[in-house]
Amino acid sequence: MMMIIPFHCPRLPFGLLLLTVLLSSLLTIPTVEARIRRYKWEVKYEYKSQDCYMKLVITINGQTPGPSIIAQQGDTIIVELKNSLLTENVAVHWHGIRQIGTPWSDGTEGVTQCPIFPGETHTYKYVVDKPGTYLYHAHYGMQRAAGLYGSIRVSVPDGVAEPFSYDYDRSIILNDWYHKSTYEQAAGLSSKPFVWVGEPESLLIQGRGRYNCSLLSSSSLEAGLCNATNPECSPYVLTVVPGKTYRLRISSLTSLSALNFEIEGHNMTVVESDGNYVEPFVIKNLNIYSGETYSVLVKADQNPSRNYWAAVNVISRQPQTATGLAIFNYYPNHPRRSPTTIPPTGPLWNNSDYRLAQSLAIKARQGYVEPPPQTSDRVITLINTQNQIDGYKKWAINNVSFTLPETPYLIALKENWTHAFDQSSPPDNYNSANYDIYSIPKNPNTTSTNAIYRLKFNSTVDIILQNGNTMNPNNSETHPWHLHGHDFWVLGYGKGKFDSVNDPKKYNLVNPIMKNTVPLHTYGWTALRFRADNPGVWAFHCHIEPHFFMGMGTVFEEGVERVGKLPTSIMGCGETKSLIKP
Amino acid sequence: MMMIIPFHCPRLPFGLLLLTVLLSSLLTIPTVEARIRRYKWEVKYEYKSQDCYMKLVITINGQTPGPSIIAQQGDTIIVELKNSLLTENVAVHWHGIRQIGTPWSDGTEGVTQCPIFPGETHTYKYVVDKPGTYLYHAHYGMQRAAGLYGSIRVSVPDGVAEPFSYDYDRSIILNDWYHKSTYEQAAGLSSKPFVWVGEPESLLIQGRGRYNCSLLSSSSLEAGLCNATNPECSPYVLTVVPGKTYRLRISSLTSLSALNFEIEGHNMTVVESDGNYVEPFVIKNLNIYSGETYSVLVKADQNPSRNYWAAVNVISRQPQTATGLAIFNYYPNHPRRSPTTIPPTGPLWNNSDYRLAQSLAIKARQGYVEPPPQTSDRVITLINTQNQIDGYKKWAINNVSFTLPETPYLIALKENWTHAFDQSSPPDNYNSANYDIYSIPKNPNTTSTNAIYRLKFNSTVDIILQNGNTMNPNNSETHPWHLHGHDFWVLGYGKGKFDSVNDPKKYNLVNPIMKNTVPLHTYGWTALRFRADNPGVWAFHCHIEPHFFMGMGTVFEEGVERVGKLPTSIMGCGETKSLIKP
Repeated sequence: MMMIIPFHCPRLPFGLLLLTVLLSSLLTIPTVEARIRRYKWEVKYEYKSQDCYMKLVITINGQTPGPSIIAQQGDTIIVELKNSLLTENVAVHWHGIRQIGTPWSDGTEGVTQCPIFPGETHTYKYVVDKPGTYLYHAHYGMQRAAGLYGSIRVSVPDGVAEPFSYDYDRSIILNDWYHKSTYEQAAGLSSKPFVWVGEPESLLIQGRGRYNCSLLSSSSLEAGLCNATNPECSPYVLTVVPGKTYRLRISSLTSLSALNFEIEGHNMTVVESDGNYVEPFVIKNLNIYSGETYSVLVKADQNPSRNYWAAVNVISRQPQTATGLAIFNYYPNHPRRSPTTIPPTGPLWNNSDYRLAQSLAIKARQGYVEPPPQTSDRVITLINTQNQIDGYKKWAINNVSFTLPETPYLIALKENWTHAFDQSSPPDNYNSANYDIYSIPKNPNTTSTNAIYRLKFNSTVDIILQNGNTMNPNNSETHPWHLHGHDFWVLGYGKGKFDSVNDPKKYNLVNPIMKNTVPLHTYGWTALRFRADNPGVWAFHCHIEPHFFMGMGTVFEEGVERVGKLPTSIMGCGETKSLIKP
Repeated sequence: MMMIIPFHCPRLPFGLLLLTVLLSSLLTIPTVEARIRRYKWEVKYEYKSQDCYMKLVITINGQTPGPSIIAQQGDTIIVELKNSLLTENVAVHWHGIRQIGTPWSDGTEGVTQCPIFPGETHTYKYVVDKPGTYLYHAHYGMQRAAGLYGSIRVSVPDGVAEPFSYDYDRSIILNDWYHKSTYEQAAGLSSKPFVWVGEPESLLIQGRGRYNCSLLSSSSLEAGLCNATNPECSPYVLTVVPGKTYRLRISSLTSLSALNFEIEGHNMTVVESDGNYVEPFVIKNLNIYSGETYSVLVKADQNPSRNYWAAVNVISRQPQTATGLAIFNYYPNHPRRSPTTIPPTGPLWNNSDYRLAQSLAIKARQGYVEPPPQTSDRVITLINTQNQIDGYKKWAINNVSFTLPETPYLIALKENWTHAFDQSSPPDNYNSANYDIYSIPKNPNTTSTNAIYRLKFNSTVDIILQNGNTMNPNNSETHPWHLHGHDFWVLGYGKGKFDSVNDPKKYNLVNPIMKNTVPLHTYGWTALRFRADNPGVWAFHCHIEPHFFMGMGTVFEEGVERVGKLPTSIMGCGETKSLIKP
C-alpha cells in the first residue's frame, strides 16, 4: 500500500505533522520493498586531463568523479571496492550517511577502519535511511584531493511526495584542482620550512575545468602535458528544456576553496541541504563550502535562443584561480556554443557579511522541522587556531592538534585497548573567556594528541566553534566543519567572540536547519547541537583537506558498548595484528 | 681464541683447504662473540635534489641512499622500520642475505610478507652469515626506484684474514634516476597504449648526479625545481691517499640501466662479487648490472697532483643519459677540484662480446671454490620474452607473465590455503627446441599466472635462462636475474640458442663463481645451478624494476614444511584476515 502524505499543506502544527510522518513511516516502510543496490568498483591511478593538464588521478571504474549512487530511502547499498592501487591503501567515506547500526562502514581510516590494502576487495554495506543529497570520497591521508569522490542521491520512497516539484533532477559536484600530487602537497605541509599547497590551478564543475595552458612556458615539459583541445576538459554541459524546472543538486568537495555558484541570469530557490529540507529562499548565487550539499530549483525561464554560463568563483580567500565554467544549454541550441557574455564573477571574495547572511537564511522547512532539544547536557567550545609544534605549522582546536592513532578507535574501544590511544579527555574549552580572537595566538605552540571526546549516550551536546586569528596578522580563515554519523542542529552564527551568557539566548530553537557540514566564518562563531544517540566513533573535522591533515579535527565516541561484533574486514593494521591467530 | 687461517697460501689442495676452513669455523665460531646490531629507521617522503632536480623521494632517517649496515659475519641485524609514509605501505628486501632460518625476513611483499602499513613499526631480524657486499632496497611495487635503498657490508670475523689486502674500504652504490614518480611510471606501464618509462634523466653515484638544468625551458616550473648549484647534487668525492690501496665495493641498483664503471687512468682488480671471492683479474672498467655487487681493489698509483674522474655510463641500451661523474680525489688536492680531462665514456654501448667476455672472466677464487654438484635433478628452461595480454605489454618467461597474489605465498603455504594462488606448476620449458629466439614471438599473446615452482627439498636445480627477441625487430635486451635466499653457481654463458645436448658439456664445474644476480645477455643464454636447501619461498626475477613489474619473474618453494611458526607481524593482508579472531 502506498500513501501520499499531504506534505504540501503548509502550516500544519508541528506535532500533528510529526505524527503524520511517524504514522506514514509505520504504514509505508513495511510495504515498500527496500532494494539492495550493489556496486563493483575498482580504484586505480590513471592519467586524466580534467582541466586540460594531464596528471595522475585516482579513478573508480575509470571515472572521476566516480559513478553516482542512485538509491531510494531504505535501500541497502553494497559497494565491493577493489583496491588496484599499486602500493597505496584506500578508504571511502559515505559523507552524510549516518551509518545507523553500521558504524564500521563509515569509511574513515584510523577512526572506523584499517585502510583497504592493495589487491583487497572490501565490502561497504549500509542503509540510506534518509532522502537527500550526499557524497562519497576517500578519507585517508589527502587522497580525496587525488580525485576519488562522487555523489549519492537518495530519493523518497515511491508514493511519497516531496514538498516541491521539478521536472528533472541533476547532480553537480564542484571541486578545486591542483597539479601537484597529494604526495607532494603532503610532503610540503609536513616540512620545515612549511610549504603551503597554494591556491588551486583550476576549479572543476562535475570533473571538468580549464587551466590556461598558455601560462606554461611553451617549450617546457609541462606545456606538453597541457592541451586545451582535449575533450576531457571541454566544459560540463547542463542541457535544459525551456520552461522546465530543474532540481540541481550542487555539492562541493574542494580541497581548500570556499566557492560561489551562479547561473547567469537565473535565480535559484534553495530547497534542501545535506539531506534536510530548507524553507525555500531565492538567491542569485550560492555560497558553498567543502562538504556541503544543496538542492536548488532553477527554472529555464530566460531567453531560450542562447546558452548561459554556470560559474564558480573562489570566495573567502583572495582568488588566484580563474572562474570555473559550465554551459547552461537551452535546448535546441548547440551544447558547445559558448555564451558571448562575460561569465559571472560572483560576490566580492571578502564580503563576509554576505556569506554570514546566506548562512543565517537557511532554516528548516515548515512542516519538516525536527525540533531540537531545548537544552543541552554538555557544551564543548572549540577555539580554532593555527599553531606550531617544534616549528612545524599545525592547526589545532583548543590548542591541541589532532593526530590519528595506528589502531582505529572503533576497534581499540571494542577491544578495550587502553594503550592504543591517549585515554585522557581533550579540553572542553581553552581559556575561552580571555582568548583574544583578533590577535596572533599568544601561545603559538601547540601539542598533538589522539585523545577523543567520550560522550554520554543519548546526551545532548552543544559545540561552539569559535574562530580566531591565524599566525598571520589580521587573518582569519573560513572552516567548514563536518560531523560524521549525525546531523546537527545549527543553532546560530555570530560575528566576533561568542558570548556564553547572551548568545545562547538568541539560539534558533524553533526551526533550525539540520546539517552535517557547516561553515565557521572568519572571526565568527557557529553553535551546533546534536544528540549523541548513534553508537559508534565519529570524526568531526574541518573539511579543508590540508587543514585536517595539519590536525584540525577530533573524534566523538558515544555508546560504543552498544556496537555489535565488528567485521574482521576492517582490521589488519596496528594493534589488530595481535588478533591474528594462525 | 682467535686463529689466523693461512688463506694467503695459494695452491693448497681444495680438500685440505676446505678442511682447514671447516675446522677453523668450528674453532673460531664459538669464540667470536656474534653481536646484535640494532637500527631504528623511519621511512618517509622528502624533497631531495639528488641530480639538482628537486623531487619527492623515499628516505630512511632523512637519507637516500639510506644508512649503511656495517656488520661482521655472524652478527644479528635487527632493523626496526617505522613506516611514516602517509598512505603507502613498504617492504624492504635484504639483497644477497640468504635468510637461513628466517625466510619471513626476506622482505619481499607478496612472497614472504604483507607490506608494512603506514604508522606501523616492523622488525626485521636476521643473521648475516657470510662476509661480503650486499644491498637492501624496497621490494614492493616500483618503490625501489623512489630512492629506498642502501648497502650492507659484512666483514670477516676478527682474526680471519681475507685473501687480499687493502688499506681502506669504501662502498659506492650506482643508480639511474627518473624525474617522474614511480606512480607515474607504473601508471604508464599499465596503460593501453603502453607508456614506457624511457631512459633515465641522470645516473647517480652514491646518491649524487647531475641533470643538465639548462635542458629545461628557463621560464618553466620545472626549471624552478632545478638548481645546478644545490649542494645536494655536488659530485660524490672519493678521497684517496697516494700509494694506498682501496677496496671499492661497487654495486648497482638501477631501475633500468646496465652500467659501466671506470676510474680515469686506474686499473681495478676484481676480488669479490655478491659475497663470493673472485679469482682476481684486472680490468680498466667494470660492467655492472642491477642487483650485482663487486669489490675491486684500486691503488692510488697515478700522478697525485691532480684529481681523476670516476664515471658511469649506460651500456647495452643506446645511451640517452649523460655520464655520471664522481671525483676520485688525491689527497691533499681540493676535493671539489674537477679534473680538466674529458671523462671516460666507457666501452661501446652495443659491444655485447665485451660484456660477455667480462662475465666469463668471473670465476671463484682458488682456495674458496665451493664445488657445485656435478649433476642436477631438474632442469628448468626459462625463455625470456616480451608479450602482450589483451593489448597490454608484458614480459614473460615461458610465455607466462607473473603476478603476485593478494596473500603472500609463505603464509598461504604454511596455512595450506590452496585457493590463495594457482596450484598448478608453471612450465619447465616453452617449446624450447623450436623457439626462434631471433624473431618477434610468433605467439605474442601471453597469459598471467601466480603459480610457482615447487622444488624438491635438497634437490639440485638447473636454470637455463634463454634470451630472445622483444616485440621490436632485431632487439634483445639484457636482463639481470636475481635469486632470493640463495647463491647459485654460474655454470656458463653462451651466445644464441642453448644447445641442451652440447652446451652442458661445456659447463664450468670446476671453479664457477657463486652469485645471486647474473646477467642474461642479448640473444644469449645463462646457465645456473643451485641447491634447493633453504626452506622458504624465494623470488627469482629480472632486477629491472619495470620488467619485474610487467611480469618478468617467478617464485621457487622448497622445504616450506620445515619453516617454523611464522611471526604474525608479516600478516594482516589478503586471506590472513581470516586469522583475525577478535
